[in-house]
Amino acid sequence: MAGLSARVHRMNEFIEKASPAKSVRRRGGRKREAAPSPVAAPFVTRGIPFFSLLDDDALERVENEADTLLQEVGMEFRNDPETLAIWRDAGASVDGERVRFDKGMLRAIIQKSAPREFTQLARNKKRSVPIGGNKTIFAPAYGPPFVRSLEFERRYATLEDFRNFVKLTYMSPWLHYSGGVVCEPVDVPVSKRHLDMTYAHIRNSDKAFMGAVTSAERARDSLDMARILFGPETLEENCCLMGLINVNSPLVLDATMLGALKVYARAGQGTIVSPFIIAGAMGPVTIASHLSQALAEGMAGIALAQLVRPGAPVVLGILSTAIDMRSGAPSRGAEPMLTLMAYGQLARRLGVPLRGGGSFSASKIPDTQAGIEASSFIMMSVLSGANVIIHAAGSHENGLCMSYEKFMSDIDTLGQMARLLEGIDVSRDEFALDAYREVGPGEHFLGCAHTLERYQTAFRESPLSDKSSYEQWREDGSLSMSERAHAQWKSQLASYERPALDIAVDEELQEFMARRKAVLPDGVA
Amino acid sequence: MAGLSARVHRMNEFIEKASPAKSVRRRGGRKREAAPSPVAAPFVTRGIPFFSLLDDDALERVENEADTLLQEVGMEFRNDPETLAIWRDAGASVDGERVRFDKGMLRAIIQKSAPREFTQLARNKKRSVPIGGNKTIFAPAYGPPFVRSLEFERRYATLEDFRNFVKLTYMSPWLHYSGGVVCEPVDVPVSKRHLDMTYAHIRNSDKAFMGAVTSAERARDSLDMARILFGPETLEENCCLMGLINVNSPLVLDATMLGALKVYARAGQGTIVSPFIIAGAMGPVTIASHLSQALAEGMAGIALAQLVRPGAPVVLGILSTAIDMRSGAPSRGAEPMLTLMAYGQLARRLGVPLRGGGSFSASKIPDTQAGIEASSFIMMSVLSGANVIIHAAGSHENGLCMSYEKFMSDIDTLGQMARLLEGIDVSRDEFALDAYREVGPGEHFLGCAHTLERYQTAFRESPLSDKSSYEQWREDGSLSMSERAHAQWKSQLASYERPALDIAVDEELQEFMARRKAVLPDGVA
Repeated sequence: MAGLSARVHRMNEFIEKASPAKSVRRRGGRKREAAPSPVAAPFVTRGIPFFSLLDDDALERVENEADTLLQEVGMEFRNDPETLAIWRDAGASVDGERVRFDKGMLRAIIQKSAPREFTQLARNKKRSVPIGGNKTIFAPAYGPPFVRSLEFERRYATLEDFRNFVKLTYMSPWLHYSGGVVCEPVDVPVSKRHLDMTYAHIRNSDKAFMGAVTSAERARDSLDMARILFGPETLEENCCLMGLINVNSPLVLDATMLGALKVYARAGQGTIVSPFIIAGAMGPVTIASHLSQALAEGMAGIALAQLVRPGAPVVLGILSTAIDMRSGAPSRGAEPMLTLMAYGQLARRLGVPLRGGGSFSASKIPDTQAGIEASSFIMMSVLSGANVIIHAAGSHENGLCMSYEKFMSDIDTLGQMARLLEGIDVSRDEFALDAYREVGPGEHFLGCAHTLERYQTAFRESPLSDKSSYEQWREDGSLSMSERAHAQWKSQLASYERPALDIAVDEELQEFMARRKAVLPDGVA
Repeated sequence: MAGLSARVHRMNEFIEKASPAKSVRRRGGRKREAAPSPVAAPFVTRGIPFFSLLDDDALERVENEADTLLQEVGMEFRNDPETLAIWRDAGASVDGERVRFDKGMLRAIIQKSAPREFTQLARNKKRSVPIGGNKTIFAPAYGPPFVRSLEFERRYATLEDFRNFVKLTYMSPWLHYSGGVVCEPVDVPVSKRHLDMTYAHIRNSDKAFMGAVTSAERARDSLDMARILFGPETLEENCCLMGLINVNSPLVLDATMLGALKVYARAGQGTIVSPFIIAGAMGPVTIASHLSQALAEGMAGIALAQLVRPGAPVVLGILSTAIDMRSGAPSRGAEPMLTLMAYGQLARRLGVPLRGGGSFSASKIPDTQAGIEASSFIMMSVLSGANVIIHAAGSHENGLCMSYEKFMSDIDTLGQMARLLEGIDVSRDEFALDAYREVGPGEHFLGCAHTLERYQTAFRESPLSDKSSYEQWREDGSLSMSERAHAQWKSQLASYERPALDIAVDEELQEFMARRKAVLPDGVA
């Protein structure tokens, strides 16, 4: 116990030293409700080339296989006659709920009207995010029902946890996007949860966010709240909201997902269409098949959005996993990384933005495994050219559980990834020829003019990564990264100040929620 | 204490389950002294393209800056008149110990005779390693004076630790190379250490290894031992030994390194010439300058080896770090990763194999930070096209300390990296069209023919990464990756069986060592 309390004491000391409240105030933030969260940049601009993992011949083969799949096997659109009618009108072959597409048909629909790039507005215009091209934005995890921290064992997540992660996301310079279901607020009835989640994004942050997709009705609720926030005209003319549409792989889109997709598309809002393929279950056990299947499924969803409203913002997604033969559990090793790299090439050939996976790990705790898996996958996702990277921070257990500590260490990695994407400056001065003339062989560069001009900004600092000497590290309490992360999130939440929100808007949002909650059942469905 | 002993018990259970001894025996290994260590492949063949981070224009700019540096500032070759004479004869401008080179001169020397690829023999010919081209080999850490494990706090490394890491390297399917100073055996006098290290590589492993470089005399001792092992003719005609020559950056090669370099080159053995640039100290604080400086320094060393013996095997190396502004400590973030990626391009343009850095971390313990930093850097090193990756397993504290547990988790990552380099198979059957026809929309692929044919080998399994359910993980003792790694290395060492060695050779080696030790002083110099 003495050991434990000494460690807590050390963590508290780290909190004192690391408190961002001080530095935010030093930067001249206004008082209460107005302190800006630190902004590195509202998005990352890629300064390095895209990587051609597959050659054109191989990519054409994948596209051709996807087309064959769509033509021969087709997709099922379940319990949704309207969607079947849309496909029939567009010239697809509809047989019951099975729809088959001529080769090239979906690609032609998409390339006719889908935007290559678009901007999603944030209520703080400075934080609006461009989506597509050479831009990348990072968003927190999506959907974990559990949460844990060094303070408590794994338990169900609550609305308070949800708000906490929205706040921490708001305060992070490396999360550009508030996300969607950053964790499941299990203490709120399923039927009403979406209202509280949408409100938490609006009230506790000023970054762009995602709306509900678990039914058409809930999607409409999110849309109504966004309409209150942005105003009806702004909403009509801009992308202010996105919905994450998971395909019911293999080759199915059900009424729930189709309903939400149509609500967003019809309103000119964005949809991310994301096949979710667990090898062996929702797809075969090969990378090539995941590529052709995901491309087929993704094109079907995106093309539908274009038929509902030509020009509606769309993003092509993928979540593909390997499978662990000992446990039957999904796993993310080298194979899903390779899949994502090649899928990025397919998205660019199709001409739509790409959604990539994030800092995934199968680990149950923020240990070495969590570090290895999360950083490997996020690096590959970043290199793949992904434009929207969901799950960029927070989860382990393959997305089942949020960790407060991993959330902070993942963010730390994101800063590194943003620097990686900047690439190398090869302008003349960077070569420092004068410094070599000044210093000469065998001497050090610590005091030369070139170094003095640059040393403070030359390299990205990682706030959580310990670089001190062994002796200094011991003196500081021999803390692990998770222990420092623990101190950091406690400190950040303690100094959180929510961004200002127009009182009339806030009241209208609250009235809307009260009205909806009064008519929605408390059931679990 | 009850908690601790329960954890130890769980780890022991993991040892029982994980024991490779059983599986090795099952695979039909011979008895005592002959059990083969598991072999995945003696090297990794890259199946994915190289990544062009910089375009040709930028690369030419780097090369031109390197040439300007060599021409205007030059390099110093200290306390070594013979080397100065070699340069003078080759047409360089020699001014005291400062040597300046006409633009393009070193490149021309190198491209005239340096091999693009070569093979280093191992005493077990099946483990000989090709170096260069699209091949990659992984070697353990080099030089840490300290060691730690979950069993003991950080302490000085010993010869027993050295042997342990050689044994663990021998047993790993993902370390293709026995390495050099896998840790400093501090309990042996400096003057005699190289003999015990070389003997440990020979006696405890049958993989290829590196010799001493801390003086010309010690390099000759390593060479003499290799000559006993391989026989004089084989040594004369083949690369049987490599030496790691660190440049005394900036722009200096001293008599020690020059002496060792010439011994190896003259005997037709390999040298890895590795500039070691800590930003701000041994070089400016920009990536571009590290590229031009390292290229200049590396070319000088490699060209010298070619002048000593045209055709001598050489490898271009680099170790470049950022610097942490809070502590002044070297750090490895995105910048050194970018440096290595671009340097890989430069090595390929020059036409020599590349040595890349490895699983580096500044962390003091095998925590999340160690996982993040090590896996990020090794992934970039692998993507850079590095042919020899030293430090691929074991160290933290920026190379100062070996960790038995990190050694095992790093190896686990190497398996992942090897899979990554294989790339994607896009042959017809991989697309599984028949499986889709068989399964259809909305059904699972678990029982289909395509899955049954492939599932056992479809995805690389990670022996240390936990993929089980939360409940199963708890039942198994809630172990962290480090705890599993602890069990794994204990288990592996317990089941280690050394490879057979000809008794006459062994005796001759021991006689040689005894003779040398008798005349070498016990001093620390």
